[in-house]
Amino acid sequence: MAAVADNWLRSVLMALHRIRPATRTALVEDTGLNAASVSRGLQVLLDAGLAVKTGELDSIGGRRSETLSLNPEAGYFVAVDLEGTRVRCARTDMLGDVQRMWEAPVRPEKGISLTQVHRGIESVLSGLTSAAARRVLAIGVSFPGLVDSSGRLTAVNLHWKDVPLEEELARRHGLPVYLEQDSVTGIRAEQVDGPAAGARNWIYLLAGNGVGVGLVIDGRYVHGGRGMAGEMGHVVIEPEAADLCQCGNRGCLEAITSSPNIVRQYIERTGRRPMAAEVTEVFSRARQADPAAVEVIDRVGRAFGLALSHAVSILNPELILLTGDIVGAADLIIPRIQRELAQRTLPQLLDNLTLCASRLGPDVRLRGAATLAFDRIVNGPDWLPQLCRKGTGFAGGDSIIPRSQQASRRSLRRSHRDGGRSR
Amino acid sequence: MAAVADNWLRSVLMALHRIRPATRTALVEDTGLNAASVSRGLQVLLDAGLAVKTGELDSIGGRRSETLSLNPEAGYFVAVDLEGTRVRCARTDMLGDVQRMWEAPVRPEKGISLTQVHRGIESVLSGLTSAAARRVLAIGVSFPGLVDSSGRLTAVNLHWKDVPLEEELARRHGLPVYLEQDSVTGIRAEQVDGPAAGARNWIYLLAGNGVGVGLVIDGRYVHGGRGMAGEMGHVVIEPEAADLCQCGNRGCLEAITSSPNIVRQYIERTGRRPMAAEVTEVFSRARQADPAAVEVIDRVGRAFGLALSHAVSILNPELILLTGDIVGAADLIIPRIQRELAQRTLPQLLDNLTLCASRLGPDVRLRGAATLAFDRIVNGPDWLPQLCRKGTGFAGGDSIIPRSQQASRRSLRRSHRDGGRSR
Repeated sequence: MAAVADNWLRSVLMALHRIRPATRTALVEDTGLNAASVSRGLQVLLDAGLAVKTGELDSIGGRRSETLSLNPEAGYFVAVDLEGTRVRCARTDMLGDVQRMWEAPVRPEKGISLTQVHRGIESVLSGLTSAAARRVLAIGVSFPGLVDSSGRLTAVNLHWKDVPLEEELARRHGLPVYLEQDSVTGIRAEQVDGPAAGARNWIYLLAGNGVGVGLVIDGRYVHGGRGMAGEMGHVVIEPEAADLCQCGNRGCLEAITSSPNIVRQYIERTGRRPMAAEVTEVFSRARQADPAAVEVIDRVGRAFGLALSHAVSILNPELILLTGDIVGAADLIIPRIQRELAQRTLPQLLDNLTLCASRLGPDVRLRGAATLAFDRIVNGPDWLPQLCRKGTGFAGGDSIIPRSQQASRRSLRRSHRDGGRSR
Repeated sequence: MAAVADNWLRSVLMALHRIRPATRTALVEDTGLNAASVSRGLQVLLDAGLAVKTGELDSIGGRRSETLSLNPEAGYFVAVDLEGTRVRCARTDMLGDVQRMWEAPVRPEKGISLTQVHRGIESVLSGLTSAAARRVLAIGVSFPGLVDSSGRLTAVNLHWKDVPLEEELARRHGLPVYLEQDSVTGIRAEQVDGPAAGARNWIYLLAGNGVGVGLVIDGRYVHGGRGMAGEMGHVVIEPEAADLCQCGNRGCLEAITSSPNIVRQYIERTGRRPMAAEVTEVFSRARQADPAAVEVIDRVGRAFGLALSHAVSILNPELILLTGDIVGAADLIIPRIQRELAQRTLPQLLDNLTLCASRLGPDVRLRGAATLAFDRIVNGPDWLPQLCRKGTGFAGGDSIIPRSQQASRRSLRRSHRDGGRSR
């Protein structure tokens, strides 16, 4: 029975993380628990200071519904995003909202050092009171490339080979460390908001410094037999092509469609450097009908369309969501992908397929990394039972609940006792 | 509590269907239930006559383990396989073992009629006593093509368009009807025995009259957003090719690799009809180094390799299992697929990938259809509670347990009471 109660608490916590603001009705719907279980779970979380009452919503029929939230200051997470042309570290509150940010460029010729990442984490953790510092719960990391079973990362773009990331971060900062591939952290964030919220079968196409896909099938992430699902970037689609990929093959999808390769192809066709040598410059020139840029973007769109025709025919997804640098050229690329898909795929598979760009900004993987850390801490064996079994969780001056919210919590509880109108 | 008990019973029934013969230890391992729950569930099933004690196994250490089985005569199923050059119907016992079989050819020029299928089902059901006839529980159907939400089948090879299969079978035979795509019924059967037993991430490549894949990801079948996952046969891999597919496109994987298209390409290259106009004849001639046959098989292997390079890069499977007519050319095709895969895929994705042919014979989908029906009946809301809530399930002369086995069951129970040695 104790185990069941913990699972109720976890379900309610996870729902409070997703739904903002949450009513009891919304929590019942989201968790699949009955109203009594949700109320019982909420009361434990309110008593421990993990949840707070935030206000009331007018509802249809004139009755007012109480709204609830996770206590944002109940805990903090460090989120690290290693993908892209910059590495970013953030401190987030319990809800994953960024409180402090740090970033440093990844130089193409030398990558970035682990020492720099350590410094970034220390920077975002500075300025906390000692009581707050004790409530930093974990580090979540979104990584490109491949991590082995010992948590060592190999990522070509960072110039990292077998870097003992998990061990070093845990040792230096004294916190649990959770690692997840960039496509999966992106999926975590996208599932909370935007076109992918509620989608059960969809493909997350990440195209920037590298190219890969994340898969959600029947509502669950797909990792593959050895955790290498989604390596679509390295399927050879033009064996005769000269385009050389960092993986050593020629004619890979990534060798044609990644940002550095888009820039390279434009330079090869024009013999000149684009002004900023950035992929956004090629996108702009294609919009201005620069023939070389149009030709490159055409090729990129056809290549994505070809690869996606296989993915769509195998998986029958309802959504393909583009993310990464490619979002900046969605207006140019999406029509070309659609044309190629139409030529290569059964029409029934395209009838109910949406192809669109992510609306979440560059923070998407950082937010996903914070969600990962929250998820692992909440569902881990230690944190929740420690807090909840002991009643209030924290004693005296170490309370996790700001004084102002303690007061409002008491007054709300009193009003509930007085007549229960707020339910 | 009642609901939990039903789920225990279902878990034990499903395990008894998979494991032959089963010991209590094996049931504990397979179900994840504890020994007390398994014993409690087994006793209910033994009392209801759904399970029987079948003997004892010597085990390490000198102790003897009791073996148990589903009572084969506790219920019967009709299995129908609509894929291939013949349609087959079978009556199976509770374990899915075929008791009676019927088959009729599918004529390429006119397919087969639903009336013929009705006749096949009546044929396999004839000869049962009236008591046994009341224990026919359901019809399971393995179909090619696509079924809509009303159970209407469209299958080009059968010459069927919107045939109300589910409704007509249910009305004519007065039984629940369960439909499943041929790739999925194949997967059901393969998971019981052979290289796919225990595999968590694998691809089932079905190549015969049609071409498609079934997917198992994290141990679960993949259906896709609209139930059309696995339509790999209709991805266009050579847009410039003349090969016309039944779907209307040119250069689909199926237009190059299905059995009729292998025969067609051989005829086109030689100008003569192969002796039997069957795909096995082309396979034989390729083995005898007939240049036209070798050329066709080369093209088929390359086409499969290309399509599978995408599937492998997206899904990172541990196994690709070939089934259908293609099994007859596994020795010729597999090396060609491997060569193409090696040229198009990251080596890390191939390191732990097995590519082999199914060892189950032509009954594979029939067995899968029977398993489907068993699964749905056992996990449905009516059958199990009806049987088990009423204690013995059947009264008097309508007992589901053959007299001989009732006796052995009683004597075994007595020996258990005498000293519990048989446990």
